[in-house]
Amino acid sequence: MILPKLVFTDIDGVWTDGGMYYTAQGDAMKRFSVSDGWGVSFLRRNGIETAIITGENTPIVTERAKKLKIEMCHIGISDKKRKAEEICGKLGISLSETAFIGDDINDLPLLRAVGFSGSPCNAPSYVKSRVHYVTTAPGGYGAFRDFAEKILSAHGLLEKTIESYL
Amino acid sequence: MILPKLVFTDIDGVWTDGGMYYTAQGDAMKRFSVSDGWGVSFLRRNGIETAIITGENTPIVTERAKKLKIEMCHIGISDKKRKAEEICGKLGISLSETAFIGDDINDLPLLRAVGFSGSPCNAPSYVKSRVHYVTTAPGGYGAFRDFAEKILSAHGLLEKTIESYL
Amino acid sequence: MILPKLVFTDIDGVWTDGGMYYTAQGDAMKRFSVSDGWGVSFLRRNGIETAIITGENTPIVTERAKKLKIEMCHIGISDKKRKAEEICGKLGISLSETAFIGDDINDLPLLRAVGFSGSPCNAPSYVKSRVHYVTTAPGGYGAFRDFAEKILSAHGLLEKTIESYL
Amino acid sequence: MILPKLVFTDIDGVWTDGGMYYTAQGDAMKRFSVSDGWGVSFLRRNGIETAIITGENTPIVTERAKKLKIEMCHIGISDKKRKAEEICGKLGISLSETAFIGDDINDLPLLRAVGFSGSPCNAPSYVKSRVHYVTTAPGGYGAFRDFAEKILSAHGLLEKTIESYL
Repeated sequence: MILPKLVFTDIDGVWTDGGMYYTAQGDAMKRFSVSDGWGVSFLRRNGIETAIITGENTPIVTERAKKLKIEMCHIGISDKKRKAEEICGKLGISLSETAFIGDDINDLPLLRAVGFSGSPCNAPSYVKSRVHYVTTAPGGYGAFRDFAEKILSAHGLLEKTIESYL
Repeated sequence: MILPKLVFTDIDGVWTDGGMYYTAQGDAMKRFSVSDGWGVSFLRRNGIETAIITGENTPIVTERAKKLKIEMCHIGISDKKRKAEEICGKLGISLSETAFIGDDINDLPLLRAVGFSGSPCNAPSYVKSRVHYVTTAPGGYGAFRDFAEKILSAHGLLEKTIESYL
Repeated sequence: MILPKLVFTDIDGVWTDGGMYYTAQGDAMKRFSVSDGWGVSFLRRNGIETAIITGENTPIVTERAKKLKIEMCHIGISDKKRKAEEICGKLGISLSETAFIGDDINDLPLLRAVGFSGSPCNAPSYVKSRVHYVTTAPGGYGAFRDFAEKILSAHGLLEKTIESYL
Repeated sequence: MILPKLVFTDIDGVWTDGGMYYTAQGDAMKRFSVSDGWGVSFLRRNGIETAIITGENTPIVTERAKKLKIEMCHIGISDKKRKAEEICGKLGISLSETAFIGDDINDLPLLRAVGFSGSPCNAPSYVKSRVHYVTTAPGGYGAFRDFAEKILSAHGLLEKTIESYL
C-alpha cells in the first residue's frame, strides 16, 4: 500500500451514519463524531492533508471542515472523480498517489481510481466488494479515523503518531 | 412477484427509526437516511415513482420529499388504503400493481391490498407476519432502499441499475 | 396480574433512551418514539388512560403529551409516589389498581407501590430486580408500548385491540 | 483502589457517544444521558464532587454542568493534566487522590497521573490498555455513572447510596 500524499473523503455515511436531520425548514443538521477529528489530526502530523468531496450541497459540512481546519472542502459535487483529478492537477500529484473513503454508489468511480480505497463496514456489499479496505468502525462512529489509522499503521507510523501526543 | 408500477411508502418507522425529536415548540425534527434516497433514485431509473403516504401531518416530511423530487407526498392521512386507491384511480392502475412498505398497525389494510408488501425487520411481529418481505435493514437505516433493491433484484434489474451509475 | 385502571409512566429512559439534547441554550430536545404513541392508543381503546409523572421540568414533555391527548401530564415531580397517590385519590382508586413503568432509582418507591410494575431492559439491574416485568424493547425504542401490550395480552385483550384497527 | 477526593471527567466520548451535531451555524448540540446525572448525584451523596475538563470550547457543556450543579466546569482546555494539577493545588490535594475518566489520546497524560483511571468500553484500544477500569456502558450511555458506581462499590458505598434514595 502506498503512503498517500492526500486523503479524499466522502461525508454522509462516512463521517455520519447516513442520518440527515430535517426540520420544517429542510435538511438542518448532521451528526459528526469527535473521533474522526483525530483521524484528520493524525494524518496532518504526518504531512498528509484531508480533502472533503461530497455530493450534498450544505453549509453544515463547511462548518465541520472549518472546525477541523480543512481547507479543501468541496460540496455539491456530482462527479467526484473529476473533482479529485482537478485537485490533484493543481497539486501536481496523480490519483494513484491518493486515498479515498466513500460508502455508496456515486463514490465507486473515484474509489476505483485511487491508490488506496476504503469504505465503512456498513456500506452496501457492492461497494465493500470493490475497495481495498473495509473499516471496523461504522460510518459516523469512527470510520474515517479507522481508515486514517490503517494508512499510518501500514507504514509503521501509527505508534509514533500516538506517542507524539503523550 | 410483480414489478410494481408505483411504490407507496410510510415514513415514521420506515424512513426513520421511529424517532420524533421534540423541542419546547413540539415535534420539530426527524432523522432520515441518505441511503433511502438511493432507493428512490434506483426505482426512478426503472420508471417507477415513489409515493409517500403518512399519518403524521408535518412539513418535515414535505421537505424530505422536495429534496428527493417526490411529487406524490401525502401527509396527515388516516385512511392510507383509501388514499392509495384514489391515487391509483387517477393513474389508471390498480392496487395489485403497486407495492407498499409500512411498519405498523395502521399500515395493515394497505399492506394487505397491494401486490407486494414489506416491513422493516424491527416492525412488530403482527405486522411482519402479514407482509411478503421483511427487510434486513431496520427503519431509518436503509429499510426503504432494501425494499427497492428487493423489487429490482427480483426482476434482474438491480445489477443493471448499479452499473448505470458507474 | 390486575388489569390496571390507570397506567403511570416515567419519561426519560422509558419514552426516551435517556438522551438529553443540549444546545447553548440548555436542555432543548428529546427523542420520542412513534411506537409508544400506539401503546397509549391501545390502552385507551380499552378504557385505560396513561398518566405521565416525570422529575424533569420541561415543556418538551408537555408537547409530547398534548400530541397524544394525554391530559394527566405532571412534570418537575420529585416525589412521584406522593403525586400518584394524589391522582388516585381524585379518581377514587388505589395505587394497587394502577401500573407504573420507570427506569431509575427515583422511580423505585412508586414501582414498589403499584399493582403492576415494569422497567425497560436497559434499566440498572437494581431497578430491574425490583419490578414485575422487564420489557424486551429498550427505553426510547418501544418500551412503553411493550409494557402496554404486556398488560393487554395478559388479559386476552391484545389480539382484539389489534383487530379493532383492521 | 483509593476513594477519590475528586473525580475529573472528560465530556465528548464519555458523557456523549462522540456525536457532535452541526447545523449551518456550526457545532450546535450534544446528546447527554440522564443516567450520568445520577452518577454525579451518587458521588455527591458521598462527599465527592465532579469536575469537568474538556478540550472543546462550547457553552453546551456549561449548560449541562449548570443543570447538574457542577461548579468546576473547565472548557477549551488543551493541557488537561496541567489544569487538573492547578485545581488540585487550590484544593490542597494531589492528583493521586483523584480519579479521571477519559476516552481519547489527549486524555492519556492525565489518565496516567491520577489514582484511579477509567475509559468507556468503546474508547480506542490504546487508551483502554492504559487505564485501571474499562466501563461496561459505552460513552453517552452511562459510562460516567458506571465509573462512579465502580468507585463507590469498591468501597462498599454503592448499596448504601442506593438505599438512601428509597
